[in-house]
Amino acid sequence: MRVKITGVGLYLPPKIETAADIAKKIGKTADWIINKCGVKERRVSLIDVDEMGAIAGKKALGNSNIPDLIINASGVPKQTIPDTSTFYQKALGFEGIPSFSIHCTCLSFVTAFNTASALISSNIYKKILIISSDRGTRGRNFNEPESASLLGDGAAAILLEPSTEDDKSELLFYNMKTWPSGAHLTEVRGGGTNKHPQDSNTTLADNLFTMDGPSVYKIARKQVYKMVMRSLKATRLHQNQIDWVIPHQASGKAVDAYVSIGGFPKEKVCSSIKEFGNCVAASLPMTLVMNIKNNNIKRGQNILLIGTGAGLSVACALINY
Amino acid sequence: MRVKITGVGLYLPPKIETAADIAKKIGKTADWIINKCGVKERRVSLIDVDEMGAIAGKKALGNSNIPDLIINASGVPKQTIPDTSTFYQKALGFEGIPSFSIHCTCLSFVTAFNTASALISSNIYKKILIISSDRGTRGRNFNEPESASLLGDGAAAILLEPSTEDDKSELLFYNMKTWPSGAHLTEVRGGGTNKHPQDSNTTLADNLFTMDGPSVYKIARKQVYKMVMRSLKATRLHQNQIDWVIPHQASGKAVDAYVSIGGFPKEKVCSSIKEFGNCVAASLPMTLVMNIKNNNIKRGQNILLIGTGAGLSVACALINY
Repeated sequence: MRVKITGVGLYLPPKIETAADIAKKIGKTADWIINKCGVKERRVSLIDVDEMGAIAGKKALGNSNIPDLIINASGVPKQTIPDTSTFYQKALGFEGIPSFSIHCTCLSFVTAFNTASALISSNIYKKILIISSDRGTRGRNFNEPESASLLGDGAAAILLEPSTEDDKSELLFYNMKTWPSGAHLTEVRGGGTNKHPQDSNTTLADNLFTMDGPSVYKIARKQVYKMVMRSLKATRLHQNQIDWVIPHQASGKAVDAYVSIGGFPKEKVCSSIKEFGNCVAASLPMTLVMNIKNNNIKRGQNILLIGTGAGLSVACALINY
Repeated sequence: MRVKITGVGLYLPPKIETAADIAKKIGKTADWIINKCGVKERRVSLIDVDEMGAIAGKKALGNSNIPDLIINASGVPKQTIPDTSTFYQKALGFEGIPSFSIHCTCLSFVTAFNTASALISSNIYKKILIISSDRGTRGRNFNEPESASLLGDGAAAILLEPSTEDDKSELLFYNMKTWPSGAHLTEVRGGGTNKHPQDSNTTLADNLFTMDGPSVYKIARKQVYKMVMRSLKATRLHQNQIDWVIPHQASGKAVDAYVSIGGFPKEKVCSSIKEFGNCVAASLPMTLVMNIKNNNIKRGQNILLIGTGAGLSVACALINY
């Protein structure tokens, strides 16, 4: 599908929390955190997801007119009702723009990219603002050292428009799969009808993030490898024609697996986990936007957006930027 | 976009709660409820949204093979992570199907219909199962008599496929608009990062549904009327060429407004509010599926799916069934 990223935006909360800061709360050392999770520090936002996302969205829009659709592609909403996209729109000062959310946890951005491309290809919309904004630090369970050490806050946004005749920009391939047998491996059990706050058996921990990291990794590394092979086969590209791999920043180990198992050269696999942690659905677009802004990623290059999400899900989007 | 509803399914929880049952809890009479909200009775589900949705989804699939995408189009999730669609898939016994949620509160089904049509038109998927499943009764605030009297539980599903050459079936028009100035009129403030259960200032009421019905109605009736006119203008259809109006069942008054303000004949405006209440995002597809199952809706007829949602949003999809 012939679509082009015409604007990008980022919001990095100024407040930094180091591994040493976390260490006290989880009864581990800073070295344990860095070795186990790969996260040296993360940002902690003092403003909510809607304001964070609106800052990134405003930057992505630049001098552009208002978008004709806003898609929220985050892991966790601001609140149950109305949809988070409404609050982005409010913070951006718009009225009357259609907006909704696409949700598949950490893969929300990849799926939103494909869906937005289909909406553009079907001539329904021409200028779609996709915003991913997450405050992973809001749902940390300090009794679960590994997952609590991973999470961070941040937001990123892109503006997606149809490619012009001269553009090579294109979504070359998208694929997603979910294995619900792994649904219990990564959860926040509260926030909906399942563990409602009014039920006497709902605990505070039900509203916090829980993950069986080793079990996720065991399934994910195989399925992610298969997904890489599927994307290459479908596009008839050789692995060395992939210029950049932008993975979801699940953990240091998960990002490294694209090199050790995926077979990509280390310098092509973009990482932000050390400085920003796992920012849920925002991690992948944050890493994409950072590498566009610092001119690593250039027009005409092939970029593989790929990752795992709670579900257990694996998805990828292979784009010519 | 040339798409066709090839299967439909419904789940109506067996447990009935009458206006008289509610009256005691809110300090009003059954007559007050029926006159004010138009809800004589509603269903109360003893199983969660995922199981409800899976029952409706299984019926929609019929003897069909597994779908190649499941979209959850509900108002409230089962839990924050993973996505509700994962749990549908689990309850249906599938593994490896892509699935995600589209969320824009009560309009989730209408927006999912348009999005699924774009995905089919773009040749990405050929058999999409859309499921809307909501337990409105889980979030009732009995200190707010009007909204507490409205809500009910239910689920509906449709299977969407490309139209064949001989089919007239088509999505003729879709439109959506959101006015965030009305965001505070309908809310569940908990369930996300805004009013997190771990914050000392989060109250139980923050996790319950609150609505300023009269203010919503005042804005909605004008905007819905404009939306009807826009759909007729865009499709060049005369109002009498709309065979059925399937509104979101916001309230008795909101459904009646399609006759009194919208100018549609009463017998063309489908209502389920009296027997089932406002089942959040499931209301509209439940009403659609009921009228397909009882043979009111016939192939070749023009159906206007339309409604309001928290946001404040208005959306419509005009389809040739």
